[in-house]
Amino acid sequence: MREEEKQLVRRLSFFEHVPDEAVDELLKGALVQQFPSETILFHQGERPDFLHVLLEGQVGLLGVGTDGKETVVEFMNPVESFILAAVLTDAPYLMSAKVIDRARVLLLPAAPLREQVNTNARLAADMLASLAKHYRMLVRQVKDLKLRSSTQRLGCYLLALAEQSESGSSVTLPVDKRLLAARLGMTPENLSRAFSNLRPVGVRTSGQTVTIGDIEALRDLCRPDPNLED
Amino acid sequence: MREEEKQLVRRLSFFEHVPDEAVDELLKGALVQQFPSETILFHQGERPDFLHVLLEGQVGLLGVGTDGKETVVEFMNPVESFILAAVLTDAPYLMSAKVIDRARVLLLPAAPLREQVNTNARLAADMLASLAKHYRMLVRQVKDLKLRSSTQRLGCYLLALAEQSESGSSVTLPVDKRLLAARLGMTPENLSRAFSNLRPVGVRTSGQTVTIGDIEALRDLCRPDPNLED
Repeated sequence: MREEEKQLVRRLSFFEHVPDEAVDELLKGALVQQFPSETILFHQGERPDFLHVLLEGQVGLLGVGTDGKETVVEFMNPVESFILAAVLTDAPYLMSAKVIDRARVLLLPAAPLREQVNTNARLAADMLASLAKHYRMLVRQVKDLKLRSSTQRLGCYLLALAEQSESGSSVTLPVDKRLLAARLGMTPENLSRAFSNLRPVGVRTSGQTVTIGDIEALRDLCRPDPNLED
Repeated sequence: MREEEKQLVRRLSFFEHVPDEAVDELLKGALVQQFPSETILFHQGERPDFLHVLLEGQVGLLGVGTDGKETVVEFMNPVESFILAAVLTDAPYLMSAKVIDRARVLLLPAAPLREQVNTNARLAADMLASLAKHYRMLVRQVKDLKLRSSTQRLGCYLLALAEQSESGSSVTLPVDKRLLAARLGMTPENLSRAFSNLRPVGVRTSGQTVTIGDIEALRDLCRPDPNLED
């Protein structure tokens, strides 16, 4: 494992307070691998052998229905771990993980990690914080799905992207529109309709680029909750 | 605090491995209170002072939109704690908690709990397991909302109730239909329609009682995932 990769791993919030030696110990059996787009890292229903840590690229966590229908529950960006809840409880994955954009992934063996968590209070407490963050992401999503229209969901998503972007009025969609529609809980057709509904507040798309003409009007329409959004 | 209440609290999975003295220590500042139906235990946006433990009755975790619209994210049944993610990270609640059915609730002061978690690896690991369980409940719900029709969601919900019931073919809805509709992410009108759509497989309602005429046909229609449902 390269020094640069070790530095990336240390950016995981739950390794923040762990001494170097303990991290080195955990990384002993770890592998770093490159995966091309579309690679399935694991399937829903399998038991976790590793905690995956995304170092580079993008991964989607997918839900698959009993009829084979597929949706996106969440996207993972570097540096992020997935899926703690399954790995720590040694329970079958409820989601599959698929590479969306060429990914470099650290595979951290699950068994030694579980052992460390059972004996190292600091690590366990930091993992609680990380899991709590992911729990809260899902609470936000459930509220989003149940309380907002498709148009408002898209609007709030664009506003969140705009917050992170430098210009603030032009954002780049991180995934194609088919995946975005799944993440937002709508069909591609509904996503097109939602974009059309946002034209009156100056939202225009050109490929992956979205410009927001009137950000205040978009806020008024979609009413994101400044205290509770991510 | 009564001995019977202490016994109830010990049923929380994350106290399973904690020695009696440590639990007693945590319970020192705790209160047990009775609340009538409709009581708001805390509001979305507030910071947690206590971890709530439901000893008796029923509580709903509600999401409230910026337009005041309200939905049910999840129901809590005894003995269950809420909301670990907010309490342990000292973050504003993303949901409100409302008493649905006369509740007896233990209020466990948050600050000493957080301290214990930071020093007691066993407690922290058990809390991780509890939080993981709640995380997985939400993953199931997001998949349910994104992959299933309203009718299938209702059908899977009834099948889950039937699994827990003694007769297997007759179940009692734990909440009224307005709350059930919110939990399942639909309007009361859509819930009525979903019940109608289940009539061909022998689903009949009478007040809070639902009988399932042909459980195999209901399974075929709704296709729950036996490995991944709760």
